[in-house]
Amino acid sequence: MKKMGMSDLAQEILKGNHRAIARAISLVENDRNAAREMMKKIFPHTGGSLIIGITGSPGSGKSTLVDQMTGLLRKKRDKIGIVAMDPSSPFSGGAILGDRIRMMQHSVDPQIFIRSMATRGHLGGLARATGEAISILEAAGKNIILVETVGVGQDEVEVVKLADIILVILIPGAGDEIQVFKAGIMEIADIFVLNKSDSPFAERMEKQLRAMLDLGLGGKAPPPVVKTVATDGQGVDKLVKEIDKLVADRDQELRDSRKKRLIPWMLMDIISEKIYHSVTHDIESSEFESLIERIYRREIDPYTVADEIVEKLKKSR
Amino acid sequence: MKKMGMSDLAQEILKGNHRAIARAISLVENDRNAAREMMKKIFPHTGGSLIIGITGSPGSGKSTLVDQMTGLLRKKRDKIGIVAMDPSSPFSGGAILGDRIRMMQHSVDPQIFIRSMATRGHLGGLARATGEAISILEAAGKNIILVETVGVGQDEVEVVKLADIILVILIPGAGDEIQVFKAGIMEIADIFVLNKSDSPFAERMEKQLRAMLDLGLGGKAPPPVVKTVATDGQGVDKLVKEIDKLVADRDQELRDSRKKRLIPWMLMDIISEKIYHSVTHDIESSEFESLIERIYRREIDPYTVADEIVEKLKKSR
Repeated sequence: MKKMGMSDLAQEILKGNHRAIARAISLVENDRNAAREMMKKIFPHTGGSLIIGITGSPGSGKSTLVDQMTGLLRKKRDKIGIVAMDPSSPFSGGAILGDRIRMMQHSVDPQIFIRSMATRGHLGGLARATGEAISILEAAGKNIILVETVGVGQDEVEVVKLADIILVILIPGAGDEIQVFKAGIMEIADIFVLNKSDSPFAERMEKQLRAMLDLGLGGKAPPPVVKTVATDGQGVDKLVKEIDKLVADRDQELRDSRKKRLIPWMLMDIISEKIYHSVTHDIESSEFESLIERIYRREIDPYTVADEIVEKLKKSR
Repeated sequence: MKKMGMSDLAQEILKGNHRAIARAISLVENDRNAAREMMKKIFPHTGGSLIIGITGSPGSGKSTLVDQMTGLLRKKRDKIGIVAMDPSSPFSGGAILGDRIRMMQHSVDPQIFIRSMATRGHLGGLARATGEAISILEAAGKNIILVETVGVGQDEVEVVKLADIILVILIPGAGDEIQVFKAGIMEIADIFVLNKSDSPFAERMEKQLRAMLDLGLGGKAPPPVVKTVATDGQGVDKLVKEIDKLVADRDQELRDSRKKRLIPWMLMDIISEKIYHSVTHDIESSEFESLIERIYRREIDPYTVADEIVEKLKKSR
């Protein structure tokens, strides 16, 4: 693909060109300023796809499950986008690569687009970057987008909240439910997937899970629990049926409320970013560094400096 | 404690008054605007304490270790502040409460201040709120501050980066090292703690860990690995000695670089927050809601709206 302007890039995305999608997601990750023009152009074409978030602790089988679901959804002629968090640690090359290689069986299918998002170097911005990657895939005509997190930390919760439907994967005997509780993921689950359910602990785990759900939900109907063995695809058809059912029953309501809730946050985030850009460009870098040094020496405080910079910004027009 | 102004509150913090510390941290969490005045006042008195970050997956024994370390450090007459992440999920009440109750054996000691920080409702701001809680404890004269995360997610990594020295807790046989790798925590560890080292898998785990460290560090000296059994305090004295050694060897260098790196981020964060406040106050809430609705209907895009709001903000002076 030759160098192209943002307008051409947006056009290519709308055509579903995979190389254009890949380039656009890289822009969103690495060159936010250039990405804005493109995002403006594709925005009217977003908001129509079903976003499924998949979360659970590492080792719970998320990637395998995503893989199996993709296989099944493709048979139904869905066009699928997959965004998988990738911690991109120099230490983790091996394990992660393994996950991604497993997914590559789908990567030759022109209707499936798979992309890893680096979880690092987005100080507070992973959810934003992921949200924009989702928008790009929506604009490119993927009608189902699977978003897979790394673990169950707080940032993962923010990412998974971008989804219309959230699957929480648990495995028996790992004390896993406690992790999920601790991360505050329990309340946002639309479907629980009890993976590795061929384990001898599966039945006990299911009972415990249901008991906890009954306890915690205060009378609300508990979300469905689906048992799977992702490695051989067992139960994945049931899972897809549960998703279909959820979509049929209360999809619009679910999506409306989630998406409306996200917009104010997205808007404020874009505003903050714009201001950040403005500030770092309005102030000389030597001046900025001397400010940092003075704050470090406790000669001034960052709150006062922030006040002054914002005033300056207002005047700079 | 009667109602008091921000100036009085700052005074009471500097005296080490625990109720003032508690109130100040609540302000930082809940009333950012009021907190700014207080933060300005205490800022000159911050930056002098040793901040120790403790991270590792749930169940690795972080709380117990923090508890044991606290006992030991108190014997050395240190004044200790503890900030523990608390996911504050309605589902998790039990488990978390258990951790905190265990800590309460120290809570009658006037030289120890323990505080849970809610990990939720800080959209992108947990690290900021935690950073400010640390500053408050520094100003209050706690010379050692322990910061304990919930799990090993990305947000936890951001929080633990606030520390001068970072302990990563692993346990044998949990496949735990993979989680830590995946979260990208490996590179930021200053000391590895192999807890529950009375497990039959401990020796193998230690070997694996050392092999991985040798592999991943590309020639750099690997961080020390300390074996502990936190439940009965075994090895905790060795851990404290390792920390002392680290402080003696390269403390100033470590702290200087970490703290200087944090200031630009802190500054930009405070600026963004100020702008956010400005925007949500300058725009009528009905106007804001109609904007959200129009974005939802894809009549306008959030990028263009952000441009307009920032222009308006600049004019509003």
